[in-house]
Amino acid sequence: MSLIQQLTKLYSLDAASIPQLTQTYGKLSLFDWIVCGTGGREEPVSRKVRDYICRQYADGSCSVFGGNPATAVAASLANGTISHALDYDDTHFAHIGHLSVGVYPAAMAVAEKTDATITELVDAFVIGAEAAINVGMVLGPQHYERGFHQTATAGAFGATVAASRLYELSPGQLHAALGLCSTRASGLKNQFGTMGKPLNAGYAASNGVECAELAALGVTSADDGLDGLQGFIETHSNNPARSNDNDKFLFDDICFKLHACCHGTHAMIEAILDARRNHRFTADKVTSLEVCIHPKWLRVCDIKSPVTGLEAKFSYAWLAGMTIKGLSTADPDSYSNKVCTNEALIDFAEKVTVVGANIPDTAAEIKINLKDGVELNAEHDLSNRIDLDTLGKRLRNKAKAVIGDNSDELWEKIQHRGSESVREVGLFE
Amino acid sequence: MSLIQQLTKLYSLDAASIPQLTQTYGKLSLFDWIVCGTGGREEPVSRKVRDYICRQYADGSCSVFGGNPATAVAASLANGTISHALDYDDTHFAHIGHLSVGVYPAAMAVAEKTDATITELVDAFVIGAEAAINVGMVLGPQHYERGFHQTATAGAFGATVAASRLYELSPGQLHAALGLCSTRASGLKNQFGTMGKPLNAGYAASNGVECAELAALGVTSADDGLDGLQGFIETHSNNPARSNDNDKFLFDDICFKLHACCHGTHAMIEAILDARRNHRFTADKVTSLEVCIHPKWLRVCDIKSPVTGLEAKFSYAWLAGMTIKGLSTADPDSYSNKVCTNEALIDFAEKVTVVGANIPDTAAEIKINLKDGVELNAEHDLSNRIDLDTLGKRLRNKAKAVIGDNSDELWEKIQHRGSESVREVGLFE
Repeated sequence: MSLIQQLTKLYSLDAASIPQLTQTYGKLSLFDWIVCGTGGREEPVSRKVRDYICRQYADGSCSVFGGNPATAVAASLANGTISHALDYDDTHFAHIGHLSVGVYPAAMAVAEKTDATITELVDAFVIGAEAAINVGMVLGPQHYERGFHQTATAGAFGATVAASRLYELSPGQLHAALGLCSTRASGLKNQFGTMGKPLNAGYAASNGVECAELAALGVTSADDGLDGLQGFIETHSNNPARSNDNDKFLFDDICFKLHACCHGTHAMIEAILDARRNHRFTADKVTSLEVCIHPKWLRVCDIKSPVTGLEAKFSYAWLAGMTIKGLSTADPDSYSNKVCTNEALIDFAEKVTVVGANIPDTAAEIKINLKDGVELNAEHDLSNRIDLDTLGKRLRNKAKAVIGDNSDELWEKIQHRGSESVREVGLFE
Repeated sequence: MSLIQQLTKLYSLDAASIPQLTQTYGKLSLFDWIVCGTGGREEPVSRKVRDYICRQYADGSCSVFGGNPATAVAASLANGTISHALDYDDTHFAHIGHLSVGVYPAAMAVAEKTDATITELVDAFVIGAEAAINVGMVLGPQHYERGFHQTATAGAFGATVAASRLYELSPGQLHAALGLCSTRASGLKNQFGTMGKPLNAGYAASNGVECAELAALGVTSADDGLDGLQGFIETHSNNPARSNDNDKFLFDDICFKLHACCHGTHAMIEAILDARRNHRFTADKVTSLEVCIHPKWLRVCDIKSPVTGLEAKFSYAWLAGMTIKGLSTADPDSYSNKVCTNEALIDFAEKVTVVGANIPDTAAEIKINLKDGVELNAEHDLSNRIDLDTLGKRLRNKAKAVIGDNSDELWEKIQHRGSESVREVGLFE
């Protein structure tokens, strides 16, 4: 089955055929996405992009984090950017990227515009997210390693599918929308560490909405623009994988961020927390800490001497010190510029070495040597799923750290009011 | 000199350092671009995209072909698309693409917004166009052959430079704008033959304006996003060329379309016109006509039996007959479906053979055998520059065929009112 056939099949799936577990993860992702967007709405990039976008576009009916309602394209561009500003949203490792920030802003804006229910919103999201995963997997790790950012590239196709589903496009219109997306989608990893990174999520979302809206108006495009001759896949990957016809939703492997820093560092943080649970020690007792991770992360999150709070989020050396010293890695406020001039953390960073190893990119192995001669070893793999109850609790704790007690009401709305209109329930309030 | 240094140097060029000849070509390009935009404003893709864009965006002060004023991003998206709808705009063979439709909409919108003069508009355009040529040449023919559309990709960087110059961004802001463009620029050739092709020009233009505006607001990006590690060049070309530090403006090689058909057929048409100027003959006197062209065109514009007017634009056999019979190949209205059922043209087409030969892709050689035994030979290379007087006359004739007598006033405004405000002169009227 070709990729375009696979996406068309997904697109046409009955709501009843979407597994319950997938919907449950879709709801958790919705909760977490709104928490990230609400928490990030006053970040510098959020203010700049929101003000710019809202001045650009005509009035609309779609909610914007921290702003007035806007058109669907504008709201999705702003919300994609804002919700990725803290870099605290979910990751899908097979997709290689962030799903909620590229796909939910598109689905949410169109759901509000078409007066869909929360359940319809979640269904459109999980189908769009699954499409993005499939596109991301066909593009493959080489796409990412070459310098492309699947969050933006594959994410735009997911956003197109989600928006198209809520607009109820015909299969022919869906193909035109995907064809337009093939010439519109873009996004590079070279933006990491700049405001361009959250913008990439906004581009994914708004490109999806725009392509769906143009296709609905009868704008034509290459019907096989995604995986046809010289299509997006062929032009953007040297070694694309075959699409596989999975019946299982790969979306269920979604991995939520429980620390407000680069996802590539989380397995290390969890491993350190595990080590500390088994053996209490303090930072000054550590003589060395060796971190083994997949080599791809060496170019992503191994900044040796961060000078901004943002850079600290991409620094194994800093995050190891913060974790051992008990600073909350879950609280975005922990990542101030000041953390980079903290003497104790500067000293600790000298004890940390990071090496690439032949292990999954979701895993970390650590070795801690203490002054008393003890050697502690620990490992953690993020792909080991957390049970749903624990996950829900940790996400609600994270939400409290990020947006405070309002998060309880948001949780209740998403869990219990699925059959009601997104617009009437008011998820952004 | 790196590409980014080269663009920065270009960007900072004094107006006085722009050669007179380059400005002259820039003015011709402005005239021709407005003719194409005015002529194409009621094409189906133009109506759809203009209506969509104008509904989306807030009011603005930037002119739109056939529509109400809009914001700079909106106007440039609409105008890029509309002016490329007839596919009658200029080409630059070293850039590999269409310059005016990607760069002028951006320069024009920002010139109106900043109340620039016509001369400042033209200067910003030629500098942006030169930047697009340099980026296109570094991306190289492999970029195009892989499936990318330089008009959209390299064009977006040209639009960014032109918009940034008119906004008077600092060099640091220019680098941020180019960095944002590196993650925003996109465009595939797979859109050829669909509405996606003109949209690609609109994307180039609006991406340029958007990136310049975001950079002006202090949005940060990768400073070396264009040609740094995993930048746009590295991710989008397998074999980039070195940037060359040319003092001469390559823009001067701009090639205007004087016939409303595929650019690959123009050298043949010119060679036939040359042969007829030297030796008068009529179609019924011809026993055979052999056309030699670069083999790449055999897959592009050698449709043997066109059935639509659009297909006739891609048919050596039809265009040869039309030229010899004196039908205007400059008038878009000549390419109706009816032309394909014209008995005389059907008969003439049987006399035409087309062969690939080892000659430049800008050239054609023809051999015409007449019933009286005379053999006529002629050749034409589009890269041989036409003298400026002749070029001006031919562009004015083309303009009359496309938009009628209003073109005279437009010509006068551009030629003689350079020191006046673009807005006050009213070039779109």
